[in-house]
Amino acid sequence: MNAEIITIGDELLLGQVIDTNSSWLGQELNKIGLRVHYKSAISDSREAILSSLFEASKRSNIIIITGGLGPTKDDITKTTMCEFFKSELVLNQKVLEWVQSIFKNRNLPMLESNNQQAMVPKNCEVLWNRNGTAPGMWFYENGVAYISMPGVPFEMKTIFEEEVIPKIKTIFKLPSILHRTFQTIGIGESFLAKRIILLEDALPAHIKLAYLPAVGSVRLRFSAFGDNKQKLASELEPIVAHLYQLIGEAIFAEGENSIAEIVGEILTARKKNIATAESCTGGFLAHLITLVPGSSNYFIGSILSYANEIKIKEIGVNENTINQHGAVSEACVIEMASKIRTKFNTDYALATSGIAGPSGGTTLKPVGTVWIALATPSHTIAKCFQFGDNRERTIQRSALAALEMLRQELLKV
Amino acid sequence: MNAEIITIGDELLLGQVIDTNSSWLGQELNKIGLRVHYKSAISDSREAILSSLFEASKRSNIIIITGGLGPTKDDITKTTMCEFFKSELVLNQKVLEWVQSIFKNRNLPMLESNNQQAMVPKNCEVLWNRNGTAPGMWFYENGVAYISMPGVPFEMKTIFEEEVIPKIKTIFKLPSILHRTFQTIGIGESFLAKRIILLEDALPAHIKLAYLPAVGSVRLRFSAFGDNKQKLASELEPIVAHLYQLIGEAIFAEGENSIAEIVGEILTARKKNIATAESCTGGFLAHLITLVPGSSNYFIGSILSYANEIKIKEIGVNENTINQHGAVSEACVIEMASKIRTKFNTDYALATSGIAGPSGGTTLKPVGTVWIALATPSHTIAKCFQFGDNRERTIQRSALAALEMLRQELLKV
Repeated sequence: MNAEIITIGDELLLGQVIDTNSSWLGQELNKIGLRVHYKSAISDSREAILSSLFEASKRSNIIIITGGLGPTKDDITKTTMCEFFKSELVLNQKVLEWVQSIFKNRNLPMLESNNQQAMVPKNCEVLWNRNGTAPGMWFYENGVAYISMPGVPFEMKTIFEEEVIPKIKTIFKLPSILHRTFQTIGIGESFLAKRIILLEDALPAHIKLAYLPAVGSVRLRFSAFGDNKQKLASELEPIVAHLYQLIGEAIFAEGENSIAEIVGEILTARKKNIATAESCTGGFLAHLITLVPGSSNYFIGSILSYANEIKIKEIGVNENTINQHGAVSEACVIEMASKIRTKFNTDYALATSGIAGPSGGTTLKPVGTVWIALATPSHTIAKCFQFGDNRERTIQRSALAALEMLRQELLKV
Repeated sequence: MNAEIITIGDELLLGQVIDTNSSWLGQELNKIGLRVHYKSAISDSREAILSSLFEASKRSNIIIITGGLGPTKDDITKTTMCEFFKSELVLNQKVLEWVQSIFKNRNLPMLESNNQQAMVPKNCEVLWNRNGTAPGMWFYENGVAYISMPGVPFEMKTIFEEEVIPKIKTIFKLPSILHRTFQTIGIGESFLAKRIILLEDALPAHIKLAYLPAVGSVRLRFSAFGDNKQKLASELEPIVAHLYQLIGEAIFAEGENSIAEIVGEILTARKKNIATAESCTGGFLAHLITLVPGSSNYFIGSILSYANEIKIKEIGVNENTINQHGAVSEACVIEMASKIRTKFNTDYALATSGIAGPSGGTTLKPVGTVWIALATPSHTIAKCFQFGDNRERTIQRSALAALEMLRQELLKV
């Protein structure tokens, strides 16, 4: 059973709008066991629509089409669908009344272009759009379903959830897909691959493993395909257990939670709190922490000490420490973490000091050198990292590495 | 001249990753006069890659392929490209040395899978990837260019800018397009459109205006199409002058510089410095400032006071102020800005305090209420904003609004 998505609209091709609809549709289809095997974005042109529908009909059973149904452009998708199916537009009385009621409720005059919304191809079933004036359309021909919906995300999503999914489930016999995703940190993609190569080689053909790298972390996703969801689940169990044996310490979450959320959950559960003293991360570490709703329950605050005098005067780093070792040093970052912890009276404190670049590097401390320290109720530890020469990525990776140091510590206690 | 984009990767079809690469590519191709007329996303499968390349070669002159070049097993683009061109993989010594140097610099051992990165199809020209180990590849056959790049955004973007664009310009005769982009802040898209409607209606057919909205700001891009770049430039002059007449105060930059960069340039030129005292922005304001290389010349530091006791003890806000007016109040944010300015001994200081949500709102101060203050050598001002109920967007918009307050002040002096 193959699904495919066609998005219609010049704005997507020009890059003026980032297409979030098709990722959402991909996820939703996946949940009901349908695999999107092809996605395309085409322009608002008759030829492009006709040839895409034709190609899609040869390779897919379910074709989802979004866009091109607004009151200014509706002619093109709708009339082109008519042409494709050798059908014609007819007035749908129920849709007309719905459109009229919308305008009446908003005290707006009906334009001729709005009346046109009630004209639909004779051979389609209308998919009710309770959030807008453009109806969705369901066509079924030679075992293939063609589903056309407006491109406005909240209109499309409601139509899809309320009208399309039940219809798909009625008409098609769906296979099962089960996904389990694990987020890792601290090990590069190729090193992860090496460490789990035996596990990967031993996977049966119906279970796939994908590597999804991002800055500072890699997600691993297992996808199991079959008929019986429960059987797939129990097949995945020993594989997941094996994964944890191999690289368990690098897995910070199953699912999609950020590392700041994971750490936040543990702190909340233990009623512990935290402060930061940041230099090179410039507030980004605190930003990751405070992006999490409810973080005010465990995050007290931070002193960002870009200037050395702030490290000394506000955080309380000894001037001699900076004079002797420099601000980017184990001694300095250790003092930053332990002093802020005392000053802000928290259980934990993280501190960063490094050279984000592009300038400021030396032979001994090249751009990308970052010291990170963690102060706990019992001790303070520090680690040195080398994150390369891209300023933004060094900032991001430093903040993630700091959170990971805290997570590792919380695992021990 | 038709361009098309093929993105390879199951994660895009599954919706686990939102494809931002292809929008970026659409914009960049547009800037050099190339129109993307088709985009597709396909799975990491040999058959899908082969048939997509074949279809694309029939309709496009420039085919951009991203993804599937990592060192892991699910990445099969390279061998499939070989098959498509009836070529074979050969070792590229220069790439091998590059990959080896990366691992050496990071003190990491080389794996066999990393060596594989240096194997490239015999018939391609290597596109240098200075941010990663997977090289890009340029194929040219029967007047069609096939350009394969890694899917990791920062690797792809650098390869595209430094290697691909110059090559495309050498090989293909491109029409002239002249773009001028203006970044605005503080006025919503539809209000902007209303204020410049006469200008927009009077544009000649060969000059287009696009609205590119982002969180907290809208970019306006004029694109003039023709043969003579100089003529286009002089045609745009009076239009731009008119634009400044209509909405000049909202334009913070021509081009792509961030508002933090614009403000940083002014501070640097005037040898002035700044500190921040943040509550609801949680470090994101400082992060925007410190993302700019060289910001350590004018950014001294910040106190992030998520807890009220930090506002009182560390920044010096009067306890009575918070008791009487609350932490999210004009009085509190004014004190935060003026106290941090004195404490950190800077010329300017910005302060934020608000309710980012999702909880913490009240009838009088609903979620999204944000107070921002600016302290200058002569006075302190504060403004109240309402940024809606999305936590992340409220944080982003607050930080941008704070920088815009500073920019407006710097314009006056």
